[in-house]
Amino acid sequence: MNGAQALLGTLAHNGVEVCFANPGTSEMHAVAALQDTPRIRGSLVLFEGVATGAADGYGRMSGRPAATLLHLGPGLANGLSNLHNARRACSPVVNVIGDHASYHRALDAPLTSDVEGAARPFSDWVRTTAGADAVAGDGAAAVAASLRGQIASLVLPADAAWSPLRDVPPQWPVADPAPAPVVDELAVTEAARLLRDAGPRAAILFGGRTSNAVALELAARIAASTGAEVLVNTHIARVPRGAGRHPARKVPYPVEQARELFDRFDTVVLVGAAPPVPFFAYPDKRSRIARPGTRFVELCDARADPEPALRALLDTAGRTGAAGPAARPAGLALPARPTGTITPDKLAAFLANVIPEDGIVVDESITTGRSFHAATATARPHDWLSGTGGSIGYAMPVAVGAAMACPGRRVLTLESDGSGLYMPQALWTQAREGLDVVTLVFANRRYQILRNEMANVGVQDVGERASALLDLTSPVVDWVSLARGLGVQATRAETMDELATATDAALAAGGPTVIEVLL
Amino acid sequence: MNGAQALLGTLAHNGVEVCFANPGTSEMHAVAALQDTPRIRGSLVLFEGVATGAADGYGRMSGRPAATLLHLGPGLANGLSNLHNARRACSPVVNVIGDHASYHRALDAPLTSDVEGAARPFSDWVRTTAGADAVAGDGAAAVAASLRGQIASLVLPADAAWSPLRDVPPQWPVADPAPAPVVDELAVTEAARLLRDAGPRAAILFGGRTSNAVALELAARIAASTGAEVLVNTHIARVPRGAGRHPARKVPYPVEQARELFDRFDTVVLVGAAPPVPFFAYPDKRSRIARPGTRFVELCDARADPEPALRALLDTAGRTGAAGPAARPAGLALPARPTGTITPDKLAAFLANVIPEDGIVVDESITTGRSFHAATATARPHDWLSGTGGSIGYAMPVAVGAAMACPGRRVLTLESDGSGLYMPQALWTQAREGLDVVTLVFANRRYQILRNEMANVGVQDVGERASALLDLTSPVVDWVSLARGLGVQATRAETMDELATATDAALAAGGPTVIEVLL
Repeated sequence: MNGAQALLGTLAHNGVEVCFANPGTSEMHAVAALQDTPRIRGSLVLFEGVATGAADGYGRMSGRPAATLLHLGPGLANGLSNLHNARRACSPVVNVIGDHASYHRALDAPLTSDVEGAARPFSDWVRTTAGADAVAGDGAAAVAASLRGQIASLVLPADAAWSPLRDVPPQWPVADPAPAPVVDELAVTEAARLLRDAGPRAAILFGGRTSNAVALELAARIAASTGAEVLVNTHIARVPRGAGRHPARKVPYPVEQARELFDRFDTVVLVGAAPPVPFFAYPDKRSRIARPGTRFVELCDARADPEPALRALLDTAGRTGAAGPAARPAGLALPARPTGTITPDKLAAFLANVIPEDGIVVDESITTGRSFHAATATARPHDWLSGTGGSIGYAMPVAVGAAMACPGRRVLTLESDGSGLYMPQALWTQAREGLDVVTLVFANRRYQILRNEMANVGVQDVGERASALLDLTSPVVDWVSLARGLGVQATRAETMDELATATDAALAAGGPTVIEVLL
Repeated sequence: MNGAQALLGTLAHNGVEVCFANPGTSEMHAVAALQDTPRIRGSLVLFEGVATGAADGYGRMSGRPAATLLHLGPGLANGLSNLHNARRACSPVVNVIGDHASYHRALDAPLTSDVEGAARPFSDWVRTTAGADAVAGDGAAAVAASLRGQIASLVLPADAAWSPLRDVPPQWPVADPAPAPVVDELAVTEAARLLRDAGPRAAILFGGRTSNAVALELAARIAASTGAEVLVNTHIARVPRGAGRHPARKVPYPVEQARELFDRFDTVVLVGAAPPVPFFAYPDKRSRIARPGTRFVELCDARADPEPALRALLDTAGRTGAAGPAARPAGLALPARPTGTITPDKLAAFLANVIPEDGIVVDESITTGRSFHAATATARPHDWLSGTGGSIGYAMPVAVGAAMACPGRRVLTLESDGSGLYMPQALWTQAREGLDVVTLVFANRRYQILRNEMANVGVQDVGERASALLDLTSPVVDWVSLARGLGVQATRAETMDELATATDAALAAGGPTVIEVLL
């Protein structure tokens, strides 16, 4: 029994079922230990950002941590940008990062780097295990951190992995469960008072990982009692929506539209959210979205289970507001499928029509998809995942993890061509695992958002040399060829009709497909 | 005149001619400033690791820094693994990392992270500029650091980029040049004494970025006087070699072979190298390559110009060793082109035949290429670049920068399929810039090195589940399709004859080509 076996045994004992891996020499004992731990499925990725993004998607959909297996500092580095997103999604993730044997580090071999230093800016919990006998306890502590909605990064020196345990415990340690949520009674009382006072001038804003179906229903009932509106952050981990779910309006990304929305409110009850801020600062524009003087109440933390606090708020606010209408979930209303040339609005209607029952939508459609969320409120019931940290290239990796977490559910990835080019390697793992993921790549062949942002930041006159840096036409990326190269079947749609045919076929066939949607 | 313009002006004034960019909103003023700075060519990349790898290749070949333009913490994170390699290559690099406006950071918008914290483990110099008027000075300081062979990471908050300068200096500041090399006379005297004493039991080992043509010739003359052997580290930034250059033997990667080589020596003069260590530690094997009791003398630093110290050593060692034979550069000897089925040894002979005059070889051939270096010692004159930090996926990005630094010279990238899948996005920039890069992808469809390493770390019995994590056959990657998808012409070679035909055609045509070499 060596340290690697103790770690995998502990992870399995604590419910870890998947390890997204891109191992190297220093992780060979961990790979070998996977052989002895059939309860953990090792899933190979070609690039580490796919591993961390997949763990994010898995965590969002299952509520349980996936493990990653990464190769020293540079392997971890390749996974950091998706850890940034996972952290903002409050996803449970356990990273296992191999490092040189402890006595080898001082020799400064080429791959030596400050692994803990690299992990820290993108992790909530970082530890280097002290040796084989410490590994099981550290593994359980990492799982415990992840169950609090944290990114746990455990550095495993090679000698800790390969050394035999002096004392093999009779059973593997159990991770401390996340503490039960504590209701802040003062906040509940204050929120109830403000909601009653503000009526329709109040919003209930969800952030973090709090927007589950029960919480949204409770919020809808509170809103029905008081006249408030239920909102979800622009970038939120997961929202259950569509027919039968209680709708919540998404805060728009464009700052002016977000300000327009919040101008209607003087009171905001924050459910795992912070007071809304623009994604970026812009010259000579104020850095807040809500109007000055807006009253905020924080009901619970971004990582908390919001149900007890919302239930308490419903009880309190309901005492005087019970005369309001009952909360109504969204009905099913599928628009007709648009035909002809492809436009963003037609795409929105098509999505509303085509999202499969119990589907999972991973949205990185950026500028193309501005109207998708609103248009799909009455689609078949589904979950909607967004890019929580703003690090792009997240969607195809997150789709891997979401599909692994939810066998039998269809995943629809809404990808923009610029974003999709960060980590297309995820497609290979989708093929390898036979995942039911249909990826629509909206190919406008430019970084359209940056063209918009140039104007927002006050650059009036974008010259040719600068403009070229926002352009993807030279050369044109052939997504069909790229996807096939990575082992995924692919086709191209130049009309709404071609898109409909291709999507129907892909959903019917199962497995992964890429459809390049030419805009 | 705003901060972004001051920065670009200062970089241009200090000889920066290229900026590898993957910008976002917070970098829009820097992109706009590129419009006003025609002396700096903005080169777009699809993924940040391509930017940092290209800057590494550019720095290795030109000795001057390229800039990168990266988008906040996650954008930097995607570039870190190739910065690890660049740092080990002692390459000059100036990273410009956009960040939120200073007053926006406290609001914790989704993209907020600890940018300096992320940069530090993979940089030698890190600074966040204090404001628009500080930018020019900080830019010059970053260039100065880079000219010392360092990775300089300058964080540019958006408000520092867009704010007008209060005082526009009459001219941009000039970066302090790297200090002139100082000869350590004691080390020279000691090295001379030991070399004379040891004769053929001595080696002169090059590391860092010291192995230029002049230095290798001086070492060859010292070696001819004393009987020593000239070696270069396994992973070294750049070695000029082939006909007319003074040959140096590369230390083999496999530990046993490296030990066998160093068993012949009791004395090693270190030219920018450290005492050799294995790439990884292995259970129950010692962590040194040289035999116990080996005498080491450090002649100069990894980042230094080694010429004065080597000249002094030649003068000193030559006083008693002048009777030795004169140093002879390698002659030109091109082997015949092998035909028939493809094997690693035939590939080595083919490369020796085909490397173009003044070509640049970027080598990431890993297990396939073990015999390539030795076999090409008498090829046409060329430069050979290796993966200095062991972070894989470096070669196609580095080829971008090497080609940009050396117009008119042909680049031959020797890529393994596993490694090439980390950052294939580099191919798109090769096409965009019309770079003369021929990439041979050696497709063995597995992580062969890890199969070898499994045995080295003592894992005897690799089961099916573990073995699957080292395998790339399910699905097979179609490199021809993948490369075409990224805008690069591509073909497949299944015999040596097909490879020869394809390589000749690609070299004759110019521009980028990928040839998938099936093993």
